[in-house]
Amino acid sequence: MTGRPSEDELIVRHFAPLAAEGGLGLRDDAAFHRPSPGHDLVLTTDTIVEGVHYLPDDPPASVACKALAVNVSDLVAKGAEPKGFLLGLGLSADWSEGWLTDFAAGLAEAAMRFGCPLLGGDTVRVQRGAVIGVTAIGEVQAGRMLRRTTARPGDRLCVTGSIGDAALGLALRREGKARWAREIAFAHRAFLADRYLHPHPRLDLLSALRAHARAAMDVSDGLVGDLAKMMRAGGTTAVVDVSAVPLSPAAESLVAAEPSLLDRVLTGGDDYEVLFAVAESSLAALLAAGDEAGVPVSVIGTVEAGEGPPTFRDADGGERRFARASYSHF
Amino acid sequence: MTGRPSEDELIVRHFAPLAAEGGLGLRDDAAFHRPSPGHDLVLTTDTIVEGVHYLPDDPPASVACKALAVNVSDLVAKGAEPKGFLLGLGLSADWSEGWLTDFAAGLAEAAMRFGCPLLGGDTVRVQRGAVIGVTAIGEVQAGRMLRRTTARPGDRLCVTGSIGDAALGLALRREGKARWAREIAFAHRAFLADRYLHPHPRLDLLSALRAHARAAMDVSDGLVGDLAKMMRAGGTTAVVDVSAVPLSPAAESLVAAEPSLLDRVLTGGDDYEVLFAVAESSLAALLAAGDEAGVPVSVIGTVEAGEGPPTFRDADGGERRFARASYSHF
Repeated sequence: MTGRPSEDELIVRHFAPLAAEGGLGLRDDAAFHRPSPGHDLVLTTDTIVEGVHYLPDDPPASVACKALAVNVSDLVAKGAEPKGFLLGLGLSADWSEGWLTDFAAGLAEAAMRFGCPLLGGDTVRVQRGAVIGVTAIGEVQAGRMLRRTTARPGDRLCVTGSIGDAALGLALRREGKARWAREIAFAHRAFLADRYLHPHPRLDLLSALRAHARAAMDVSDGLVGDLAKMMRAGGTTAVVDVSAVPLSPAAESLVAAEPSLLDRVLTGGDDYEVLFAVAESSLAALLAAGDEAGVPVSVIGTVEAGEGPPTFRDADGGERRFARASYSHF
Repeated sequence: MTGRPSEDELIVRHFAPLAAEGGLGLRDDAAFHRPSPGHDLVLTTDTIVEGVHYLPDDPPASVACKALAVNVSDLVAKGAEPKGFLLGLGLSADWSEGWLTDFAAGLAEAAMRFGCPLLGGDTVRVQRGAVIGVTAIGEVQAGRMLRRTTARPGDRLCVTGSIGDAALGLALRREGKARWAREIAFAHRAFLADRYLHPHPRLDLLSALRAHARAAMDVSDGLVGDLAKMMRAGGTTAVVDVSAVPLSPAAESLVAAEPSLLDRVLTGGDDYEVLFAVAESSLAALLAAGDEAGVPVSVIGTVEAGEGPPTFRDADGGERRFARASYSHF
């Protein structure tokens, strides 16, 4: 440990400049938050681990962005405005100051972009592989938190943005020698890599979701598995039109080169898009609000009465089956 | 992973029974909390790591108790009533269901004892050595959060309970073959071991602290280092009477057998007692409130104007110096 700064020195040097008012300059051992009157607090915690949720050679600024983004994405899916976060940073013996400097810079940028300032945290040593835990808090008008349990039969199912990009970005990193990986255009490769590294929580859709959605969650473990969770939680099932699932041009080109990759698109995860149910009568208003906010929204299916996993129908009407419904990091 | 339950199955089996109303049965991807009107929220996060903050063969129920207790201890030192916590549980590949069952049982017991229910969480795989992150939230009347920066010259310094027990409990585990370790009475050994495994946040002193303390923090990294932090944060220094630092009978017997252990008592940490400053004019009321609450409170010194680390005076009036002021896990 010779020559290494202490935890306190690290905090002061790298993290105190990021702290919001509620973080008290990180000079206290706890943070405070004054809730807005008439609002509920939404709390979420997600941990990302080196070698499990990100690759050891991912840029540290990107790792920081992802650690915060996956939590802000949860808040958005609950209709909650981000208010701040706490960081539990576990570093193994091989950390470097350069890594930490870049990590803190990325965290500062993400905190500013998402309007979600650092309130406090804790730095510890772990045995192997950095462990980055974030707990984010958000606010929503009392009683208005969006649930994932409240979809009703007849509701239309929607997703934001495009699905599968991050999973394909990871596949390109891991299987760069596959035929399909060598055929893809450079711009498409860069797009997919970026989507893996930098999730974009759909903050711009917050007010539309609050106004019109009936149930919501974010897609983190794969569309197929997450939709199954949402339907099970609400005691419903669903039918999804696979051809309606939105693919980016990059994903389309990769799936055209290797059709079996469509399964990864649908089950691979790391999307951080919003999956939500909306009453048929609210759909037009929701789509108009999405347009106005500049967030693409696609209708992919319908909630149905009944039990069991949702049905995914291919363009020919046949039912698509999946070897596994979602990626499990655990 | 064959035969292993999925993360969802684990959560349902072990943690859903612990969840408070705000945890929504852990069936949602976020928790909610409705703040009491006119109150601020206090947030704290502390992570404990296998092999760093606890020993691999510590009973899993004790590990769970410690993970929650160290956070509740932070809330108490801020004058905040615990309201709930989120758990970020990182398990390495060698976890067993037996360990997890006992961990969840210990967590349930601690949550009930501290009045701090589980609101939500996240379970991930880590590379090596379990990593247990807890974020706890508490409430305090608006503007009444106790700070660690607000002690004033002339204030008396107090600590709850006894200091050094946990550090000695750990020393006994690690250096069981030392002469002093072989001489201690069994009951004393058991007491110190328990103090290391099971911190007792001083919840019973909450209202007295809120009413009378001027500044406070919990002692987690050692009295010497934590006091230095508190004084530095407030732009003051302090004088402490070492003979006034409260020792348990077990610690006294060990220090009598090996006087050099007094340094570990003062710098070893893991005490989770409250260190606080109180105006001379409020001292009698505070001590009476402590008596009534059944929480021992000792006056150990005085806040003074000036800079630099606090002075620790031995019974002979000489200044005691420390090789290092506090234990650093990092």
